[in-house]
This record gives sequence, structure tokens and C-alpha cells, in this order.
Amino acid sequence: MQLTTTYPDRNYPIVIAPHALDQLDDYIKDYKTKFLFVDNNIYRLWSERIQSIADQWNIKVYPLPAGEEMKTLEHYSQVIESLLAHQITRNTCILAMGGGATGDFSGFVASTLLRGVDYIQIPTTLLAHDSSIGGKVAINSSHGKNLIGAFYRPSAVLYDLDFLQTLPYSEILSGYAEVYKHALLDSARAVQDVENAYPNQQALAEMNDIETYLYRGVETKLQFVIADERESGVRQYLNLGHTFGHAVEYRYHLPHGHAIAIGLLYQFIMSNLIYGTAFDITHYVRYFQQIAYPLQRIKDFEFEPLYQLMLVDKKNNDQGVQMVLLKDIGQPTTHHVTKAELEQAFAELQKVIKE
Amino acid sequence: MQLTTTYPDRNYPIVIAPHALDQLDDYIKDYKTKFLFVDNNIYRLWSERIQSIADQWNIKVYPLPAGEEMKTLEHYSQVIESLLAHQITRNTCILAMGGGATGDFSGFVASTLLRGVDYIQIPTTLLAHDSSIGGKVAINSSHGKNLIGAFYRPSAVLYDLDFLQTLPYSEILSGYAEVYKHALLDSARAVQDVENAYPNQQALAEMNDIETYLYRGVETKLQFVIADERESGVRQYLNLGHTFGHAVEYRYHLPHGHAIAIGLLYQFIMSNLIYGTAFDITHYVRYFQQIAYPLQRIKDFEFEPLYQLMLVDKKNNDQGVQMVLLKDIGQPTTHHVTKAELEQAFAELQKVIKE
Repeated sequence: MQLTTTYPDRNYPIVIAPHALDQLDDYIKDYKTKFLFVDNNIYRLWSERIQSIADQWNIKVYPLPAGEEMKTLEHYSQVIESLLAHQITRNTCILAMGGGATGDFSGFVASTLLRGVDYIQIPTTLLAHDSSIGGKVAINSSHGKNLIGAFYRPSAVLYDLDFLQTLPYSEILSGYAEVYKHALLDSARAVQDVENAYPNQQALAEMNDIETYLYRGVETKLQFVIADERESGVRQYLNLGHTFGHAVEYRYHLPHGHAIAIGLLYQFIMSNLIYGTAFDITHYVRYFQQIAYPLQRIKDFEFEPLYQLMLVDKKNNDQGVQMVLLKDIGQPTTHHVTKAELEQAFAELQKVIKE
Repeated sequence: MQLTTTYPDRNYPIVIAPHALDQLDDYIKDYKTKFLFVDNNIYRLWSERIQSIADQWNIKVYPLPAGEEMKTLEHYSQVIESLLAHQITRNTCILAMGGGATGDFSGFVASTLLRGVDYIQIPTTLLAHDSSIGGKVAINSSHGKNLIGAFYRPSAVLYDLDFLQTLPYSEILSGYAEVYKHALLDSARAVQDVENAYPNQQALAEMNDIETYLYRGVETKLQFVIADERESGVRQYLNLGHTFGHAVEYRYHLPHGHAIAIGLLYQFIMSNLIYGTAFDITHYVRYFQQIAYPLQRIKDFEFEPLYQLMLVDKKNNDQGVQMVLLKDIGQPTTHHVTKAELEQAFAELQKVIKE
């Protein structure tokens, strides 16, 4: 499956397919210099294939440490100086092979190298189907995650489904939260489709036909991203579930998507509270339990530290905590919520889980 | 005088006027957080006015060391972390007050802070009328100047001519090379006008009506920049005089514009050589001597080290050194030149000066 973005200019193709990497040549043949930034874990798991690709197309391989911890200013400085030692021109392409952290870091390097060179996202996790689209690139500051970065579009996204074979279930679950979120932003039909396709842990672990749902998720995401690249308006809707989710992720060190799933539940409760919607909370809890999100963790959550974290969310302005809520499935909106409302929704979330 | 860029979107105003800073309020009143990055020398010379502006509009002042030496990755890391300590939102504006280095550095910080916040260029030198326009921002790598950066448009350029009062003549001369270059890229009439306005050192030192010629230069520059923001085509023409000029600047530590004036002479000689144009070299030498460019330095230049520096110029590709040449005034083009041609033009340049 393949689609192309629909910006006014500088569009890029997104390929979602088994063996997508076989098409790499089409995208890199015109560059004089090619660097491959690859997550160390992926490099170990796929070393033979990667080395063969690198040899075939004369690509310099830079294995990167896995995870967020490598997205520092020090590491950035070290890597960009090391690339510049090769006396490169702008006719250079960086390939970013790995999860979200690899894509964020590599994309930021590309966005600032010689005032910007091309880069190709090669996501290897289910979660990175989300982060690899839309051109958000960043490294971390000592004051917070992704605070130093750019909006900088890749020149292609090659999502090779072969990589998903080696994903542990916990990683699948983490990525699935964004697939599910995109369905919620799209339509009741889209939500029904993913729930039918993956009714329980076993079905989700098999990921049958995942291509279709990734494709749909990407289509949904692109609608928001293309309408509002720099996130001053509708792109914020992609943060559905993230105000509470991010707080949970930081405070309790849950994998990103596990925390976002909990944030989606919290958001349903808040929507019912604020808008009088009638989202069936029991249904969502039951579904998330069937596919094994760690909802039991919610019992031990404390409100106050999560509230403090929600206060520093980037969507806030002078009026306090701003959340993305659903007036209905497929109808996101933003709303300023008070501490009292946040606390009430929190109490209801815990109550639902404890029942 | 005021003009506005004509990009398809995200245009910005350019104000060139005495007391332009008095209009600052119009441009910053909507920002929650405002930082002023100011060149230390300017801060000392104008401390009272700057402090009064800062107090009036609640601007945090960051004095920066003057010159290229501060455009390091270390300094960038330190400054951006220090801004992020203020828990800022994207509703932040950075004001860059100083010469080209201040603008380059501040603009790069702005381009990467929270994935990009607004910045306003407040150039204080004649030379910075050029660098403050067009959105090229950068810091230096240990491997070369401006190798880490972005194309990132300011949200306004406020060129307050009051600052020019304190400029030493050497600085005026440095900035004037870009004014003259823009005239060469425009038309014979434009060249005639600036030569008539500033026929000798005394006239140039007085800078009567400089506003008019800065405005025209900016108009000319914008034509190239807007047609080709990322410098893959016609924007390269703005490098007229820079292939040889940059080499001279680095090798012999001449002020930027002094080196560019020499590069412009060299380019006329090369154009005559390659295209058989009939540029009157004696005229340009005489004019540049009348306004006191240090052409005598040319006598001591050596070809080989300059050639090595021209080889690493960013405009080059696999076919060797690429120069911008004039087929006529107002008709720039690019041309690959051989080492033999470079050496021949060099010999003629030295001969003309020694006569």
C-alpha cells in the first residue's frame, strides 16, 4: 500500500508493505552521500540484511543507542560533527531506521545539517507508524522531552512490515494505542473495524491485516497534519488521550502507548462529564482489558503529581489545562478544564477500574 | 521605508528607517515571553535605550559575545537550555539585535526552540542589512562556518538606521560590498546610482540617503530568495564575488565585505576570460580604491592556498569549482571553472593591482 501526502508542495510518499525496503534504491539512488542511523537493537536483529543494503548502496552505517536517553544535545553535537567531517554537500540523505526516538533524533540532525538535508523514515515499530509521519523531529532538553526540534518533512517513509515480526507484544500494544486513537478521531465505523479485527490479545498479537489499519490511521493523521503543520490548530487533536497519558507515562514509567490507552479512557470520562456525552466507559475498559492494557495500574495512581505534570503540558495557555475531548467519535475539540473537573474524572476512572 | 516579502505565505515586513525601534511594540505586543539577544558591543553603546525598551515591554535581555566565535554548538546548547528553564510556550519571541553573527545565532536558536518560535531581526550594522533578510540562520561546526543551521524566516526585520551612527568606516565599507553586489545583480542603472551617491570615502562615510540603496538592495535580494528559498537555483547568484571572496576572508582574515569587494573584482576578470565580456576592470579598481577597499593586500596573496579553499566552497559539485559570473550587469549565471582558469584570473588580478 502506498499513499502520498497532499501538501501544496514538497510532498512525500508513504509506503506500507512487507519488504518495503526492497524499494529503497528508488529513493536513494540520486544522493551522493548516504548515512544510515539505526537503532542498535534493530542492527543486531537484522545485521545481515542491513549490512548487505549498506554495501550495495555505499551507505555509511551509524548504529545509535536505543531509546529516548540518546536524544541529548551532547549526542546531537557529537553526531552532527562526525557527519560534517566527511566534507559532505547538501546532496546527502539520512536514513532513520528504528523506533520513534531514532526517527526524532535522525530527523533533527537532518533538519539542521547544512541547513537541511533529506531524510527517509524507516520505522521498525508499530508505534513509529505514528511518529514517522508528519515531520515532527526533536531531541530532549534537560527541562523536558522534545523541547528542541523542528517541523521538517521526510522525503519518504518506508514502513517495512517485516520488522514487525520481531516485536514483543508489549510493543505491539504500545503502537496499537495510536492506531485506536486515529480510529477514534476518524469515525464510529473505523473504531468498530479495529475492534472487530483485534478483539483480544491473541488476535492483536497476530496483527493480521495490520497494513490496512495502519494505512487508515496514517490517512486520518495526515488530514490534521496537512491542515495545520505547525500545530496551532487542528493538529492538536492528535493529542487525544495525551494530556493525562503523558503525565501517566512520565510519573509511572509506562510504555507510551500503554499510558495513552489510559489517557483515552480518562478522556471519555471527561467528555461525559463536560459535554454530557454518553460514551460507554465499561465497553472501553472491557476492550482494553481484553487486549491486555495494564489498567490495574490505575488503582495505584495518585492525582496530585499527575495534576502537576498536566499543568506543564504544551497545549496549555494562560487559562490552564487544555484537553482534547470528543463531542462524539470523529468529532474532537479542545476544552479548558479546571482542577476540580480533572480530579472528578480521575476519581471516576479509579472507581471504574476498582469495580 | 517599508516593504513586505511576497512568499506564498508567512510573509514578513522589513522596516528600514531612523528610529525604527520605536515601532517595536507593534511587533511584540502579542507575545507572552520576549527575549532580547544583543551583541555585547551594541549593549554597551546603547545600554540606556536598550534597558528602557526591555523594562517597558518586559523583555529578558541576553547579552551575547560579539562575533563569529560565539556561534558554537556549546554556546547554542547553553543558551537554549537557559531559555527552556523559563518554562516558556511557543508564544515566545526572540529579538536579535546586532550584526550578522547575532542574527545567525539567535535565528538558529529560534528555529529549534520548541520546534520553532518567532524571531525579529534588528540588524545594527550595514553588513547585516544583507544577512538579516532571507531566513538563513546557522551556527558553526568545527569543520566550517554556518554548517549547522536552517532556512527559517524572521517574523519581522526592523532596521533602525540610528545604529549606523556608531559604525566605524571599516564596517561601513564591509557592508557596502553587499550593497554594491546587489546593484550589480540588478542593473547598470543601479550600479551607476550607488557610484554617483558614494563616489569616494568621504561620501560613503556620510552615508547620505543610504536608506534608498539599502531598500533597493533588499528588493533585489528578495527576488532571488523568494524564487528559491532553499538555494538550489537562482539564490546561488547572491554568492556573486563570494567564491574567491570567502577564500580571501578565511586565508587573510579580511573583514567579510572587504574580501567580497576583492571577490567581485576577481569575478569581473573571470567573466571577461570565460564569456569575452568587456568589463572595464580599471574602472572598478579605481572606484574601489577611491572608497578605500584594501586592494593593496592582493599583491601578497598566494594562489594555491586560496585554490584549496575555493575547492570546499558549498556551491561546488562533482564537476569542480562553480562560480557565479556576470554575462552582463544584471545577468548572473553559474559556471564551472578549471584550476587553470582560476590561476589565470588570479594572475591578471595581481597584475592589475601592481600596475
